[in-house]
Amino acid sequence: MKIAIQGESGSFHELAAKHWFGENIELVCCDTFSEVFMACADGRADAAVCAIENSLYGSINEVYDLLQEYRFPIIGEVPERIHQNLIALPTASLNDITHVFSHPVALAQCDAFLAEHLPNAEKVQHQDTAASVAYIKEQNNIAYAAIASSVAAKQYEMQILRSEIEDHSTNYTRFLILNPKGSAPSGANKTSLTLQTNHTPGSLYKALGVLANANVNMTKLQSRPITGKVWKYQFYLDIETAGDQLITIIKEMTSQGCEVTVLGEYKAADLSYED
Amino acid sequence: MKIAIQGESGSFHELAAKHWFGENIELVCCDTFSEVFMACADGRADAAVCAIENSLYGSINEVYDLLQEYRFPIIGEVPERIHQNLIALPTASLNDITHVFSHPVALAQCDAFLAEHLPNAEKVQHQDTAASVAYIKEQNNIAYAAIASSVAAKQYEMQILRSEIEDHSTNYTRFLILNPKGSAPSGANKTSLTLQTNHTPGSLYKALGVLANANVNMTKLQSRPITGKVWKYQFYLDIETAGDQLITIIKEMTSQGCEVTVLGEYKAADLSYED
Repeated sequence: MKIAIQGESGSFHELAAKHWFGENIELVCCDTFSEVFMACADGRADAAVCAIENSLYGSINEVYDLLQEYRFPIIGEVPERIHQNLIALPTASLNDITHVFSHPVALAQCDAFLAEHLPNAEKVQHQDTAASVAYIKEQNNIAYAAIASSVAAKQYEMQILRSEIEDHSTNYTRFLILNPKGSAPSGANKTSLTLQTNHTPGSLYKALGVLANANVNMTKLQSRPITGKVWKYQFYLDIETAGDQLITIIKEMTSQGCEVTVLGEYKAADLSYED
Repeated sequence: MKIAIQGESGSFHELAAKHWFGENIELVCCDTFSEVFMACADGRADAAVCAIENSLYGSINEVYDLLQEYRFPIIGEVPERIHQNLIALPTASLNDITHVFSHPVALAQCDAFLAEHLPNAEKVQHQDTAASVAYIKEQNNIAYAAIASSVAAKQYEMQILRSEIEDHSTNYTRFLILNPKGSAPSGANKTSLTLQTNHTPGSLYKALGVLANANVNMTKLQSRPITGKVWKYQFYLDIETAGDQLITIIKEMTSQGCEVTVLGEYKAADLSYED
């Protein structure tokens, strides 16, 4: 299977893709999330693996908007623990480093480490963690380091100067599995949907009442602006139900004047975590 | 008064600052939002003006997190209509342009324009719209353009090649006015607060019920992850009340097991808009 990911081989996206689809996949590496969706739309990829939120950084707004635009069914989710590493040329030591390259989110996740150990190093933004390792290898400069996964270090035969340098140990990213031709798997027990209320006072409260009355838990509520309606929002909800109960819930919400769009029904992953 | 803003003179932040405080202010220009808050904390600035959301892009998560961290009272809000312009050297014409520099959000806002009129131009990210105009002036290269406000074009004596190039005409940014020594102005009728529920099913629904029962309108609901509690969220709410009714509402929410922190009571700006 051809799987579209944002980033290069060695990225956390590849890790998530292999956890879901197994080792025997062909990666379609894309520079941006937008290209990931385009690769699925034009048939260059069969499916996509796409980060939707990080436990420290929060939601990736662009991906929410692309889910809405393309409507590729979400068929699953994969949480990954994120460990960041300071990676450099095999001959480098910490004292040599003057520049640190990585994705802006990865740089932010290691703020305290960099402030303590490399207070004078310049932080340079790259579009991908693994690509920043490839870049410093190509530059062959002993003063350059990258922040990325241990898989990326191994793949490019580079040295891990310091491991697990993220400021908060509880650093997880949740990835969605998207398949344009996919449908709800048997045993689906979780649904992602978008909700637009009629924007009257209390309308969101009433819509959430449908869930509360049905005793359905909501694990995520994310607001996003509605393009063209200034200061009006739609909501992305993850709820712990699917199938027949979902149909009843959507009927009730619709009768209240809400517009509901299902983005996918799938099996909930184990989202427990270690400190 | 010394007012901290993110970006340079000529930026939309300056425009908002002058609309609130008048022309007679001294700008403390900061590279990042984090530096804006630090400038207020260490006394280099008396107050700050900080974008919190754009009607197309959505919330600026980093600013929500900084509001929580520093707890500087919000004393007002200013919406600004955003018009973007393609700016170049006085001698340049559209055919000369090979590179377009701007803030990533501004580049994204002009995606369709760039795809149609400059399909082969390279998009280069800068930290600020006005700074990108300063940069292309300094480079003195006829092939370079920037995307920024007409104020920035005038200030740096550059040419507006095309005006109002944003893809959606309904492009507004809402700015907050923060004053570390500020308090609720008389006539305050809007409150921004954070809400942490006890994470039991239906707990957000019950908290919103307090607002619905009091007939208080909610204009914004934004979720953000809680650091250290993976896949748990707190909520930022803007509600149309203040003063005594606010005190009653907070008491009720607290009795339900919620933690509520007021980020500021202020006068609601006119958030109506033109298409």
